[in-house]
Amino acid sequence: MIAFKPVRGMRDFLPEEARIMRFIEKQARKTAELYGYKEIITPVVESYDLVAAKAGEEVRLRMYAFEDLGGRKVALRPEFTASVARLVATTLRNEPKPLRLFCVGSLYRYDEPQKGRFREFWQSNFELMGPEKPEADAEILLLTKRFMKSVGLKNIIFKVGHVGVLRSILSQEGLAEEVQNQAMQRMDKKLYEEALKIVREAGASEKGIQTLQSLVGLKGEDAAKVLEKMRKIVEDYPEAVEAVKNLGEILSLIAEAGEKINITVDAGFARGLEYYTGIIFEVYVPELDIALAGGGRYNKLVELFGGEPTPAVGVAHGIDRMMLALQEQKAEINVEETRPVMIIPVSENLNSETLKIAEILRAENIPVELEVMGRKVSKALEDADRRGISHVVIVGEKELKEGAVVLRNMRKKEQTTVKIGELAKTLKLQIS
Amino acid sequence: MIAFKPVRGMRDFLPEEARIMRFIEKQARKTAELYGYKEIITPVVESYDLVAAKAGEEVRLRMYAFEDLGGRKVALRPEFTASVARLVATTLRNEPKPLRLFCVGSLYRYDEPQKGRFREFWQSNFELMGPEKPEADAEILLLTKRFMKSVGLKNIIFKVGHVGVLRSILSQEGLAEEVQNQAMQRMDKKLYEEALKIVREAGASEKGIQTLQSLVGLKGEDAAKVLEKMRKIVEDYPEAVEAVKNLGEILSLIAEAGEKINITVDAGFARGLEYYTGIIFEVYVPELDIALAGGGRYNKLVELFGGEPTPAVGVAHGIDRMMLALQEQKAEINVEETRPVMIIPVSENLNSETLKIAEILRAENIPVELEVMGRKVSKALEDADRRGISHVVIVGEKELKEGAVVLRNMRKKEQTTVKIGELAKTLKLQIS
Repeated sequence: MIAFKPVRGMRDFLPEEARIMRFIEKQARKTAELYGYKEIITPVVESYDLVAAKAGEEVRLRMYAFEDLGGRKVALRPEFTASVARLVATTLRNEPKPLRLFCVGSLYRYDEPQKGRFREFWQSNFELMGPEKPEADAEILLLTKRFMKSVGLKNIIFKVGHVGVLRSILSQEGLAEEVQNQAMQRMDKKLYEEALKIVREAGASEKGIQTLQSLVGLKGEDAAKVLEKMRKIVEDYPEAVEAVKNLGEILSLIAEAGEKINITVDAGFARGLEYYTGIIFEVYVPELDIALAGGGRYNKLVELFGGEPTPAVGVAHGIDRMMLALQEQKAEINVEETRPVMIIPVSENLNSETLKIAEILRAENIPVELEVMGRKVSKALEDADRRGISHVVIVGEKELKEGAVVLRNMRKKEQTTVKIGELAKTLKLQIS
Repeated sequence: MIAFKPVRGMRDFLPEEARIMRFIEKQARKTAELYGYKEIITPVVESYDLVAAKAGEEVRLRMYAFEDLGGRKVALRPEFTASVARLVATTLRNEPKPLRLFCVGSLYRYDEPQKGRFREFWQSNFELMGPEKPEADAEILLLTKRFMKSVGLKNIIFKVGHVGVLRSILSQEGLAEEVQNQAMQRMDKKLYEEALKIVREAGASEKGIQTLQSLVGLKGEDAAKVLEKMRKIVEDYPEAVEAVKNLGEILSLIAEAGEKINITVDAGFARGLEYYTGIIFEVYVPELDIALAGGGRYNKLVELFGGEPTPAVGVAHGIDRMMLALQEQKAEINVEETRPVMIIPVSENLNSETLKIAEILRAENIPVELEVMGRKVSKALEDADRRGISHVVIVGEKELKEGAVVLRNMRKKEQTTVKIGELAKTLKLQIS
């Protein structure tokens, strides 16, 4: 006798939870449809070099990496974007842009398990490949908002920044990309002192340091005000000014597109993944301190993977985190659960007739659970009652001789005799 | 510049293929609903010991096994049944039986890639836990038939055997389980001579060898006839006689339950997984020589994993193999694809208005693709035409002043001016 458990950091979803997961997945797919994104399915096992290329040190160290039986260095995907960019750089190379691609599935990172953070987690992922215009960035944020709302989440808040602002300053200060990455990673973890130390030691000017210092303290919900301040702070860094302008354009498109979205602009905001080049964002709800979604613009990745230069912007939504957020918000989730009808033979010699009637009903799209435990009718009815089954078909010798069965309404505790030919119709009327 | 490919044995599903995959998955879920199976989601990464326990040597040697960063020996699941049995032995231990459980997802085996055989493959999996009665076995075969038909597969053939017949003989001949497993594996690969050699060397009587030899040659489509022959061949092995009787009961239940199923009874049929104890089966179509589905009864597995003794029967359906079979049968797959409406601003200063109208339409559940490439209207229309888009909304200054836009029917090459407030309604009428 061996007692097994899921491996640490992994988990099972029981029917209640699986139903909510699949509901969120369905809404993601519906969102994809509404915005014209086509689904692709990429493998869980990818080449290590691919997923490590621009993952950032943090993610790279926490990958499930191993050698396959052929000695290939592989890894379980820690995110979708590298795989999608690989496809766009190769198989889909000659497809006209824009390419709107959607995927959904499980991802793997060896993080310390904690609330909302598992080593196997689920995301839906939208990538818009080709456009560099702010309408594209706006689309990604808008579809994220619509998706979050469609599952029933309330009070969502976007936290928004722009990697281009920070990187432009670091570039103009002459910092190599590798050093920039190190500094950005510290900023991602809010280790601003460490980040500035790296920047200083890499030879940035005092003005550069001060500019960064002013930025990291700056955030607020009044986008126009924060952006105006950002513009002033970075005024000696022309590319950073352009980046602030780009962020402003995206945010006004969103503001004008419909109902209000709560946005906090955070000038010092950075994300762990190294491939971002423009706007970056995360989504939160007040009840939870982990991000429900995150994304941004990455204009160099497809090129890095050997493809044509392809500006791109995308987002990943944490499906299991959204589940947790729904729980925290005590949301009523409106997932229709079809309760099957139960069908019970009165005695064992009627098993074959019973199975036959069950199949007739299923052919009419009526969900049926067959009594397969060989229990007496009374026992089986008790079980049906306990499980909230509303209708039971009882197959008895006497009724069968007349081509009929007994239909029992468990709620009303009433039963009637129904001809087998009429059973599907009768049930459909009573169930709906 | 790095040019990446999928890892050998892995593959991408492009939108066309992904749509068919998701359609089959949807039909699997519908089948689960019709038969009262509840979905669970178990992790891809499982403990090595769990998935290796009863996988059979063949599968065991081909697992993606490795140590995680915490030094745990883990493996990517090569099949679902071990995970489901683990759950039933632990978390679901006290749930009343029968338990009908469904799962769907990707699995991993390091097989030599060939037609229909990839290292990442997809299955839907149904397990019926609790009942030992033949109705349960019949249900698993019937739902498999209904599922296969529901996706459009034709001429499916069930190949059916019974592990209990073979194992009863080997047991009565005094063979240890380990030796039985070795013999069964050879039989699974149709290496009957090798199998008989193992049995002989393990000390089986000449009668035992002859009995097995007669069985392995015996198969046919007339179930009653084959079963009668089987019964005669094994008549000196009482438990084998019982097993033949059990197989007969299951097959008559199926035969009486509805339309005819093509069944070949194969007395020498064995399957690689070691956990089977009763009926086993595989599903084929004439166009393909790999099994589309496989399953059987396994009465000891839950107990082996520390649970209560739990008779069980289940089936796994190869979703990607079913896709291939549909292709080979040149089946018309009836997957509704919603074609989005395209929306194009005449000039860049109308981007914000255009985005706003797109969001209005999406709120009305109309799929919309926004022109995000900054192309001129004529270019964007060309693109829409190429991609088979039926309706385009053109947002121009002049119409906008009147609160209207231009709606272009691409098929009829007609355009009309429509008030923005009427647009959703007009489009719904024209699209449907």
